[in-house]
Amino acid sequence: MSRYVFPFEQGRASQRELLGGKGAGLSEMSYIGLPVPPGFTITTEACNLYQELDHFPEGMMDEVWTHLTELEAKLSRRLGDPQKPLLVSVRSGAPISMPGMMDTVLNLGLNSATVEGLAALTQNRRFALDSYRRFIQMFGNVVMHMEHNRFEHVLQEVKDAAGVQQDPDLSEAALEDVIDRYKTLVRSETGRDFPEDAREQLEMAIKAVFDSWKNPRAIVYRRLNKIPETLGTAVNVQSMVFGNMGPTSATGVLFTRNPNTGEPGMYGEYLTNAQGEDVVAGIRTPKMIQEMAQEMPKTFQELTDVCRLLETHYRDMQDIEFTVEREKLYLLQTRTGKRTARAAVKIAVDLVAEGIITRDEALLRQDPDQVARLLYRQIDPAAELDVLAQGLPASPGAASGKVVFDADEAEARGNRGEAVILVRPETTPDDIHGIVAAQGVLTSRGGMTSHAAIVARGMGKPAVTGCESVRISLEAREFMVGDITVHENDVITIDGGTGRVVKGIVPTVEPGLSEDFNTLLAWADEIKTLGVEANADTPEDAQIARDFGAQGVGLCRTEHMFMGQDRLPAMQAMILAETLAEREAALQKLLPMQQEDFYGILKAMDGYPVTIRLLDPPLHEFLPNMAETEKALAQAQQEGRVDDVVRLEAILRRSRVLFEFNPMLGFRGVRLGIVYPEIYAMQAQAIFQAQAALLQEGYHPVVEVMIPLVGIDQEFIRMRDLIQQVNEATQQRTGLDLPYKIGTMIEIPRAALTAGTIAESAQFFSFGTNDLTQTTFGFSRDDAESKFLPHYLAEKILTENPFMVLDRQGVGKLIEMAVHDGRRTRPDLKVGICGEHGGDPSSIEFCHLAGLNYVSASPFRVPIARLAAAQAFLRHQSH
Amino acid sequence: MSRYVFPFEQGRASQRELLGGKGAGLSEMSYIGLPVPPGFTITTEACNLYQELDHFPEGMMDEVWTHLTELEAKLSRRLGDPQKPLLVSVRSGAPISMPGMMDTVLNLGLNSATVEGLAALTQNRRFALDSYRRFIQMFGNVVMHMEHNRFEHVLQEVKDAAGVQQDPDLSEAALEDVIDRYKTLVRSETGRDFPEDAREQLEMAIKAVFDSWKNPRAIVYRRLNKIPETLGTAVNVQSMVFGNMGPTSATGVLFTRNPNTGEPGMYGEYLTNAQGEDVVAGIRTPKMIQEMAQEMPKTFQELTDVCRLLETHYRDMQDIEFTVEREKLYLLQTRTGKRTARAAVKIAVDLVAEGIITRDEALLRQDPDQVARLLYRQIDPAAELDVLAQGLPASPGAASGKVVFDADEAEARGNRGEAVILVRPETTPDDIHGIVAAQGVLTSRGGMTSHAAIVARGMGKPAVTGCESVRISLEAREFMVGDITVHENDVITIDGGTGRVVKGIVPTVEPGLSEDFNTLLAWADEIKTLGVEANADTPEDAQIARDFGAQGVGLCRTEHMFMGQDRLPAMQAMILAETLAEREAALQKLLPMQQEDFYGILKAMDGYPVTIRLLDPPLHEFLPNMAETEKALAQAQQEGRVDDVVRLEAILRRSRVLFEFNPMLGFRGVRLGIVYPEIYAMQAQAIFQAQAALLQEGYHPVVEVMIPLVGIDQEFIRMRDLIQQVNEATQQRTGLDLPYKIGTMIEIPRAALTAGTIAESAQFFSFGTNDLTQTTFGFSRDDAESKFLPHYLAEKILTENPFMVLDRQGVGKLIEMAVHDGRRTRPDLKVGICGEHGGDPSSIEFCHLAGLNYVSASPFRVPIARLAAAQAFLRHQSH
Repeated sequence: MSRYVFPFEQGRASQRELLGGKGAGLSEMSYIGLPVPPGFTITTEACNLYQELDHFPEGMMDEVWTHLTELEAKLSRRLGDPQKPLLVSVRSGAPISMPGMMDTVLNLGLNSATVEGLAALTQNRRFALDSYRRFIQMFGNVVMHMEHNRFEHVLQEVKDAAGVQQDPDLSEAALEDVIDRYKTLVRSETGRDFPEDAREQLEMAIKAVFDSWKNPRAIVYRRLNKIPETLGTAVNVQSMVFGNMGPTSATGVLFTRNPNTGEPGMYGEYLTNAQGEDVVAGIRTPKMIQEMAQEMPKTFQELTDVCRLLETHYRDMQDIEFTVEREKLYLLQTRTGKRTARAAVKIAVDLVAEGIITRDEALLRQDPDQVARLLYRQIDPAAELDVLAQGLPASPGAASGKVVFDADEAEARGNRGEAVILVRPETTPDDIHGIVAAQGVLTSRGGMTSHAAIVARGMGKPAVTGCESVRISLEAREFMVGDITVHENDVITIDGGTGRVVKGIVPTVEPGLSEDFNTLLAWADEIKTLGVEANADTPEDAQIARDFGAQGVGLCRTEHMFMGQDRLPAMQAMILAETLAEREAALQKLLPMQQEDFYGILKAMDGYPVTIRLLDPPLHEFLPNMAETEKALAQAQQEGRVDDVVRLEAILRRSRVLFEFNPMLGFRGVRLGIVYPEIYAMQAQAIFQAQAALLQEGYHPVVEVMIPLVGIDQEFIRMRDLIQQVNEATQQRTGLDLPYKIGTMIEIPRAALTAGTIAESAQFFSFGTNDLTQTTFGFSRDDAESKFLPHYLAEKILTENPFMVLDRQGVGKLIEMAVHDGRRTRPDLKVGICGEHGGDPSSIEFCHLAGLNYVSASPFRVPIARLAAAQAFLRHQSH
Repeated sequence: MSRYVFPFEQGRASQRELLGGKGAGLSEMSYIGLPVPPGFTITTEACNLYQELDHFPEGMMDEVWTHLTELEAKLSRRLGDPQKPLLVSVRSGAPISMPGMMDTVLNLGLNSATVEGLAALTQNRRFALDSYRRFIQMFGNVVMHMEHNRFEHVLQEVKDAAGVQQDPDLSEAALEDVIDRYKTLVRSETGRDFPEDAREQLEMAIKAVFDSWKNPRAIVYRRLNKIPETLGTAVNVQSMVFGNMGPTSATGVLFTRNPNTGEPGMYGEYLTNAQGEDVVAGIRTPKMIQEMAQEMPKTFQELTDVCRLLETHYRDMQDIEFTVEREKLYLLQTRTGKRTARAAVKIAVDLVAEGIITRDEALLRQDPDQVARLLYRQIDPAAELDVLAQGLPASPGAASGKVVFDADEAEARGNRGEAVILVRPETTPDDIHGIVAAQGVLTSRGGMTSHAAIVARGMGKPAVTGCESVRISLEAREFMVGDITVHENDVITIDGGTGRVVKGIVPTVEPGLSEDFNTLLAWADEIKTLGVEANADTPEDAQIARDFGAQGVGLCRTEHMFMGQDRLPAMQAMILAETLAEREAALQKLLPMQQEDFYGILKAMDGYPVTIRLLDPPLHEFLPNMAETEKALAQAQQEGRVDDVVRLEAILRRSRVLFEFNPMLGFRGVRLGIVYPEIYAMQAQAIFQAQAALLQEGYHPVVEVMIPLVGIDQEFIRMRDLIQQVNEATQQRTGLDLPYKIGTMIEIPRAALTAGTIAESAQFFSFGTNDLTQTTFGFSRDDAESKFLPHYLAEKILTENPFMVLDRQGVGKLIEMAVHDGRRTRPDLKVGICGEHGGDPSSIEFCHLAGLNYVSASPFRVPIARLAAAQAFLRHQSH
């Protein structure tokens, strides 16, 4: 019985480890009765023993000869037989695909005698000679380790001598000359003759494929792709078939469905009387596969049947290679076909309809990150692009517009209906109104989590950040890339999905949830146990989120509401207030604005919970930049503008008091609420008044109040008592029942560590994983991403950016502890996550495993989150 | 059987809960046969029932009358008897002492008849009348709730009418007049007569004492001191004795040993023919207790015996009150005497020598924080002080010197041998050379953990910080406090133990470890299981630490070494280097300096481990202030100093690159080592070369290399491999075996959370609890202490400043996890703490409980740490 060699008809798809991917595929096709040119596979085990012993394992070649003899008998041809020569291909095939990394030899078996036999069989001596020429070149390079260009050089000499340009123009005589010269070259370079003995050729080729497992390219490829060295490669020895044996022969490649759109029906091309290489070489224009219906109706029907069989068998769309040799169809390869995100969705939904796969499988086959792109306008893949620069893909989607360098300008022109792209070195909270009005944002500095990136993602607006080759001159109102200057008002297109910056307007593809996608998401919703909510700060965002299937607002940040041009003055007045009375007066101005915001968001999410986070950022973020204020003050002093001097001096005085060494760890979050309870009281009043107004109009607002940055149970208790007082007063004033929940962000380690105590008074937890990651790692995000984090990722000290993919080992451990301790205190504690991780599939999987109730993602990530949540459930349902 | 009333002779010291502190003390003294004026105690239980019922519990007064009758029989006097009147005191006495909070009535039983009886008995009618007058006043105030000053007003009227100034000058007639007027006043104010019936007086007084448990002062006092409301107070009814019955009577107070020095022998004073009030009032000058040996030898001997008995019985130095009535000695009170730290040590050691207490008890009786003061020069308690201002006691010790406002000036003059005090609004690392050379530091801003405070504590140098009433004018070189101006060169004294700033030079008391203290610490060392090491950055500090008993350096910070005036330029050159080659050249200049430092420290700690932490702070800390550099650059540009312009521009350029939003969470610690491995390599080389040099000289250096701010196992592994390479190279070069340990700080939460993984490669952990507290709480210390932390402490949101006392709930939980997980991976993992908490007794107790191997404290806290470690062991030895 064989140990090292398996004929295709004895193997199965499940033996991938032993037979490699290609061998297992050929075996499987043979097994299910598809017409595969016969052959056999030498196992990976043999390869590994070879690597160990440095020679073929004992008995392996005996097995090869035995199976070769069987193959010869089956085909009535013999390797090296001058009349009826058997030709074979010798190909590598590892358990994990390593495309192009290892070696292949075709047409093995040709020599000075068999070449004439092939000429007779194909009735094409020129083809036979050219095949022999190619075989010597390939074998010389792959097996005998000669440089490829030595052969090319000889070929060129002969072409020059013959006065021809192209290979196909060479005559039979010229090819004979090439073959002779090749043989001379082999002799002089390697010191031996090119092997005439076909069996010697085979033995040498097998050894060469084994050796190619250890070639430097393959080693590097495996290291980069984390493929174990111990897998080894199999070797497939397969009889050659020829698609160029006249008008009843052909060769082609096809997908069983359209890989771009997912539409059913074969999609591919073929050439009659041609070999596979000819399709690739592009010398003749291939025909669409549908034309075969007329030209070779029997074969077309056969192919159609094969496609159905393969899809049913492999339960997925396939990418196949075939050859027709004198009306006989052969399959040379089948594999799962690559496809666009759009096609992936459609194919999966169709395969469910066709009864081939289950809904669970359809869901599991989607790559959420790839599917995410469907939700954004994309550059048409067919468009020709004049790519100016490449930055970071900070917020997906494509947008075109006139270049503008200033947020105020962007706002003014955007509001007039002009399409503009805001281009800045970096953005700050002062630029938000400009980002709102622009089609997209391009910055030359800042990472994937810079201000521009976060804000743009939150708004679902395209952004390219950290585009360092773009050199901006704000004074000249232009930017340069290399020698090219782009002026204000020039049109550019940015692609936030890839980071490309393109000159001019380019065609784009419409985004949106297709019917198939919605079908898939409906299945996801049926299956997933994790709720999906959205981070939304405006009624518009809340509506988008709801349309994308969000079942609530998991994070409504109240500070963005204060950034509006009409609100900032009142906010600044509040901050500059020197007495409680002054502060309360300023707060009273903000109250109706806040109430209006809450009214709109609660209305948009009617019936679903809206989690409103009270004021979080340090107050100095609402004041203008100190250095700029100092300059403005100097100017005002010079010009004798007394009122401005007074105002600017007040701002500067307050800014200096509020200055912090580490604002991230400073006077913000609940610490503001503790020191200035009147701020939180105002916000609570706005919330409950909005709730009362909606109830009176017949709506069903579901209010959740969230206290940020709690680390000490007493912080929470004091604020809870304050909110409760405001609630009671509002109930009394309105005569309405105003129910609400109150909970806290868990975003600093101490909150997680003392979660059991905090849960005594908090009704829900929401993990703020952005800050929790910062404090757990001791990383300031802004500083880390501009200083050492890129180095850490490049050096693999970290394998993922922990601000993008939740760190399960550290941050995750805190989350698990907090969930466990919190629920032990309060079994019905609602627990969610509202950091940026809420939209990342790996992080969502973690949230599912950690037993969270929901994730909250930015509106445009909601569909992804629904999908990822379903996948997490399916992957771990046995747990 | 009694339920509510216990005569003194039936109670015991252990019944404090039921009888109150005073009652239990009187009972105990009665029990051991000491002469106590008889009486009885009404229990706290009766008080609590009274509070509940709002009237005396049933049967209570019956018991009082029964026990009163027994008391009368015993003394042959009767309450209200005109001939042989019994007078009693009625005093409160709670289980926990609440001095002055509740009420007392003396001389109860006096009325218009018994006053004459008392006059006859004392042969002093004036005294009897005055007692009666005082009784009415006290009873009227305490029991009948009349205002004290109403009585004083009447008294003044009579004095005016009589034309006398002082109370003692009032004649008997005048006193009779006062008594009449008092009674009239009582009638008109309360609508009833002053009670003549002595039993009614007693009943009313008991009720008043019960009521006083609920008086507002007492309630506030209990809230502040966390005394439960449910304790209640007992009432002690005790027969009065009189020390003013002629020359064989006396009254006095004494300590059984000297409470200032601890020297053995009675220490106190007495007056013959006087009452307790007279001693307090200070009208007559009391005599030293030793004079009694001549004056009343029998009583003196009795007192001596009583003291011995009390000390043996209570096993501690006592503070007693006594009265001698006609040669008969009575004890009215005994309690454990308050004492100075110095006395506490001596008394404890002496009591051990006398066989009265055990060594364990001697150790447990010390208050480490109080004892800490012994190690610093203190202001002589007897000195008269002209206190200018009061700041925070940031670093203990007293120092006098001329005021200097500038670090360079302080250094120059300090090095010339002048005593100077550096006065700054706040200090920065740029000021360190000035602090080194000054006697002490005074700052107007900054808390207990400001830069000045930390640096000064580290150096064991006095500092007063946050002294806000000091308004400094650096230009005018003076500071003002109120209207007083202190100029440069004026002399001041600061007391860092109390925060006082005093004008001029004041006498101070020498510090140091007394022989007794050393004895105590030797006992501590025998008992404690926790090692005590020291934080030391210089050979001098290491030597001080060793002299104070440190068994190693737990934290040697290498960055302070770069701050010296001679080293900073080389350090700055290293930071400004633009290429690896430039950086390595600059590092080569630093290498010999580092080596010299390490050589000195390892030598001073010969035979004990020295844990050297590689460079930690962000590089910008070594560059001059950006704003100042900008100014200097403008000046240099104006003056055309080309070289300076080039240099300053380079510094500014680098400063801008190094600028961070949150430096605390930025590019520092191991992150520097990862990005610039050449820095750590240089430091490692300096360490191993110093080790080699010492080995060649016959020393026994014990090297531990510590990597700061690790949060990811790969960070540690990369640095470990680097250090190992340097070690091997140095071993090869020197031909010596250079053993070392390598470990890490655990100072960010992720390090604690992944300690099990980190311990796979780290041989020791050292908890950096300063940073760990910052990251666990999400508090920037500088910002928190200047913004919200004082508010948090005032509002009791936090009960302790977590930067002073380790937060067991949050930070402590991380430490416990890390110890547990680390030791599971590596059972012999050495674990210590090197934050400021390493010198705090409560935190040391936590470290003991968490199973740490050692704490590392600043040198001057080492003795405290030894003591606290022993106490922790003793308190928890059953665990």
